[in-house]
Amino acid sequence: GIQVFDDIDALFRASARWPAERRLLAGERGGEQIEGFDLGNSPAECTPARVAGKRLFMSTTNGTRALERVQRVPILLTAALTNRAAVVRYLLQEQPHTVWIVAAGWRGGFSLEDTICAGAIAHALSVERDSDCAGDDEAIAAMALFEQWQSRLPQLLRYAHHGRGLAALGCDADLDYCARLDSVKVVPLQVEPGLLQAAPLD
Amino acid sequence: GIQVFDDIDALFRASARWPAERRLLAGERGGEQIEGFDLGNSPAECTPARVAGKRLFMSTTNGTRALERVQRVPILLTAALTNRAAVVRYLLQEQPHTVWIVAAGWRGGFSLEDTICAGAIAHALSVERDSDCAGDDEAIAAMALFEQWQSRLPQLLRYAHHGRGLAALGCDADLDYCARLDSVKVVPLQVEPGLLQAAPLD
Repeated sequence: GIQVFDDIDALFRASARWPAERRLLAGERGGEQIEGFDLGNSPAECTPARVAGKRLFMSTTNGTRALERVQRVPILLTAALTNRAAVVRYLLQEQPHTVWIVAAGWRGGFSLEDTICAGAIAHALSVERDSDCAGDDEAIAAMALFEQWQSRLPQLLRYAHHGRGLAALGCDADLDYCARLDSVKVVPLQVEPGLLQAAPLD
Repeated sequence: GIQVFDDIDALFRASARWPAERRLLAGERGGEQIEGFDLGNSPAECTPARVAGKRLFMSTTNGTRALERVQRVPILLTAALTNRAAVVRYLLQEQPHTVWIVAAGWRGGFSLEDTICAGAIAHALSVERDSDCAGDDEAIAAMALFEQWQSRLPQLLRYAHHGRGLAALGCDADLDYCARLDSVKVVPLQVEPGLLQAAPLD
């Protein structure tokens, strides 16, 4: 399971109650791994061998803050370009009446990588349901972004403000990993406030 | 000339100092023509015969507020899909180092019609300068929106939240007018704070 925290002190307190050999602290502030943590925010570090059987205590600058804001909704999933198809499959399986896609963004503002991920999900739902552009103004714009760039995702991530920063730090492998649409089958589902576990897929 | 006001009382005070036969009051709040005004916000009403030789005193819910916020910049133009090419021509003539495109939006938030107009301008500048995706995250997303929908602008305006409202009010002619890319040659340029006049084009 992954337990997410906006507040780092709360994360340290909660993780201290967990056996040391079965916990990992993961996260970043402003892109840098947090002091005393085991992992930063690089997906490449999270190998199955390293995380298997352990609880991940996680805090990121934008993502965990967004998760706290919406933790009371009936179904809460986390999505990336990598698990897009699995998320869509889960949504089609559950058939919620309304889907809100919350972009964590970048320091409270717009981010290209989150918007294209939102567009990828909305696009797939649109295609599945054969509905032409159901969604609000933001969803329509996000879908157009995805449609325009879907065959050039690694390039788009490198044009993004955040991606330019990562590329400058030499994180090309992370960028390429994040651009691998539909490559991961896991859907993290909130099972209690702040605790995410892999959702069961049919 | 067009004199723009965020505050309606200030508009009434300024227009009262102008000869009645040489002034027109134009604008809306929440889409409705303002009480005591001569015109609403429909471009179809602004025929040359009606506005020729007159000063337009104007206030809109979103547009004039945005104009007040940025009235101290060195060059301030107003743009729509209709005068996109003329605005781009003026920018290429003036060669400013940086171009900020400010979307008036919808009640402080995102609007599809303003974003696609911003994307249309950024796209044309990109093509002219042969630069691939110069611009921030928002500009890249706006350009993708324009590229995806440029051949179906009337449809996109009708998918937009604001356009759906106008279509429901029977304003189809206004929507079709607003979707006519590059059809108008006039570039309104701020010549003193709040006062717009047609910019000279080479």
